[in-house]
This record gives sequence, structure tokens and C-alpha cells, in this order.
Amino acid sequence: MQQDFHRISVDTRGKGLTMITRPIVEWVRQTGIQTGLLTLWCQHTSASLTVQENADPTVRQDIAAYFEDLVPENRAYIHDDEGPDDMPAHLRTMLTNTQLSIPVSNGAPVLGTWQGLYLFEHRRQPHRRSVVLHLMGE
Amino acid sequence: MQQDFHRISVDTRGKGLTMITRPIVEWVRQTGIQTGLLTLWCQHTSASLTVQENADPTVRQDIAAYFEDLVPENRAYIHDDEGPDDMPAHLRTMLTNTQLSIPVSNGAPVLGTWQGLYLFEHRRQPHRRSVVLHLMGE
Amino acid sequence: MQQDFHRISVDTRGKGLTMITRPIVEWVRQTGIQTGLLTLWCQHTSASLTVQENADPTVRQDIAAYFEDLVPENRAYIHDDEGPDDMPAHLRTMLTNTQLSIPVSNGAPVLGTWQGLYLFEHRRQPHRRSVVLHLMGE
Repeated sequence: MQQDFHRISVDTRGKGLTMITRPIVEWVRQTGIQTGLLTLWCQHTSASLTVQENADPTVRQDIAAYFEDLVPENRAYIHDDEGPDDMPAHLRTMLTNTQLSIPVSNGAPVLGTWQGLYLFEHRRQPHRRSVVLHLMGE
Repeated sequence: MQQDFHRISVDTRGKGLTMITRPIVEWVRQTGIQTGLLTLWCQHTSASLTVQENADPTVRQDIAAYFEDLVPENRAYIHDDEGPDDMPAHLRTMLTNTQLSIPVSNGAPVLGTWQGLYLFEHRRQPHRRSVVLHLMGE
Repeated sequence: MQQDFHRISVDTRGKGLTMITRPIVEWVRQTGIQTGLLTLWCQHTSASLTVQENADPTVRQDIAAYFEDLVPENRAYIHDDEGPDDMPAHLRTMLTNTQLSIPVSNGAPVLGTWQGLYLFEHRRQPHRRSVVLHLMGE
């Protein structure tokens, strides 16, 4: 049984989804591990991880609009040190995922046909986000 | 340290929860692994996994009604290729779980007394859903 | 490859977040495992786990107020055997996390600078909650 670590940096352009499937799948391939468990950990409290349809860009637009309404910026928050998107970013993170663990088989994560892995940025400004990758297997 | 894979197919009857605790616990038992980590991965973007009370069916009715209001079908979505339940299915998936990892001790997942494992179907039509099971332990 | 189990009891004071980072980090240290995967499993359907900012207490107040509105107690629920906070507690649990898995490197979980681990109590009354810890590594 072997373990490997990696870290990917994701440069976001403000609120929205950035696909990260490709660098993750590529790294898993390079480790040479055929069977195991891959874990992604997003090291932030205002950005998160999600699994979504990898095909249609209109899905991403609907997701953006829905989350604006689900966690509105114009609500009265006590914590607003960093602006009106500060507290909504924390809440959106809680409602999605900080972590994902995906079984690996035949050297690749067992994603379904339509599944893509995304980083979900919740702040208005562009940020550099850090996702830790851990793979345990053989 | 040993690894085992399995896949279960879940035939849903449209929107709602289907309990999957029993086939999962049974498979873990059959592997012979006493101590380890079990991971469930749902290979879809319009169905998900959740942990809920395993006793009272009224809980399931309340969950169904709440999610209809939380992610309404009558909202104006851009992406509606497959009907009014298409985009809400993606959003419900994001708000629940695609993956669950459960420690295994004494040959069984360490579920609490009231915890059951469910597949949560988000489309109106019946579907056959695929959940990958991965167990690592000894 | 080694495995260790532990269980922590968390005494809550009713609805809200209780930080559990310290006892978890301390237990990981004591196992002597340097590299691995830590999994937390909350054994309840009316309390959950979340990752949040570890600094500002106003964040916790905003989280409390937001979740009261997101899953209101005064909604008409069928299941209310244990009072108006019963069914909302189940729904809040579904919308947050029952489980978290965190890579461990250099003998500690790879939490970001601002990340803290919390138990999120969803019932009005104080409860004693049980979280199972599982660590696999070397």
C-alpha cells in the first residue's frame, strides 16, 4: 500500500465553477496507483468542491443564479468585514463540499459518464485556491 | 491491507429516498474485512446519497416536500432540455452528497442507532442508479 | 499501514456550532501516524459536521440565523413527535455533513489557515453527541 500527495492551485475569476477534472485525473495516472482511494481537500472557507454535469455550460449559469438567491448578499449579516460577499461565501461553502473522496479503479477515479469535478469560488474577486490531493492504494 | 470493490444498482420509482443500508452492510460482511474505511460513490449528477433516520416514513415525506420548495421546478432555468425537473435535480445533488465514507469496525459500518443510508432520486421518472462501493482495510 | 479508532463525546448547549479541532488534532498526534487519511463520522441524524472559519464568533451568529430561515421551525411538518425542532434538525443535517475525511501530513490534518472543525447541533436542548474518528496511515 502506497500513499501520494499533491497540491493543485486553481486561479478563479470570481464567483463560479472552475473544472478541475483533468489535472486530477492526470496526477492519479502519474502516480501509477491502479486501485485505491483519492481524497480532495479544499483548504478554504469561502470556496468549495462539487461534482456536476461536465457538458452543458447553461447548467453552470443556472447554478450561479440559484446560489445567488439561496444565499443572498443583501441579507443583514453581522460579519461583513470583507464586503457583502464575505458571509454568503461561508454559507455556500457549508452547503456544498470541502472534501470529496473518490474510489480509483484501473488507474482512474470512478466518475460517472457525466460527472466532472469543480472548484466553486464564492468570492467576487479572483482568488488563487489550494486543493490538497491524497491518494492511498497500490 | 486489502481492497474490495462492488457496485450496486438501485431501481428508483421517481423522486424520493430508497434505503440501501442492507445490501451495503451485507457486502461489507461478505468481504471478511473487520476494520477499515468504506466509501460509497454515486455515479450521477441527478441522484445523490444521504444519511437519515431509518425508522419513521413521515420523515421521508417531509424531506420530499421540503426539497420541492428549496429547489422549485417552476423557477426560470436556462437548462431544461430534459424537462422542469432537470436543473432542480442537479441542484439537489449539489446540496446533498455524491459520496460518503464510513469507518468499518467489527466487520460493519459504524452507523448510529437511528442512521440509515439512502439513495436520493431527484428525477420524476424511475431510473436505474449505480453506486460504487470501495472498502479498504483488513 | 496502520489503523486507529477513537470516539469523542461532544456536550452541546442546544443549537449551534461547537469547535472540535483541538481534541481531533491532539488524537492524531498521539497515534504517531505521520501520513494518512483521517475520517470523522457523526453518529446522529440531528447533528452534523462542518468546516468553518476558526476566528470570528460573528460568523457563527450569522450561520445560526441563516439556518433558522433556511429550514424554519414554523413550517408544517408531518413528523413532529419531538417538537418543532425535530424535522428541521434532520433537514439541516442533510444540508451539511455527516462525514469528513481529511488527509494527514507531517502528523496533522491538512487544514487551511482559517479552517476549524465543528460539530453543528440542530436540536434546541443540550445533547451528548458521538463522533467516531478513524485514521489509516503510517
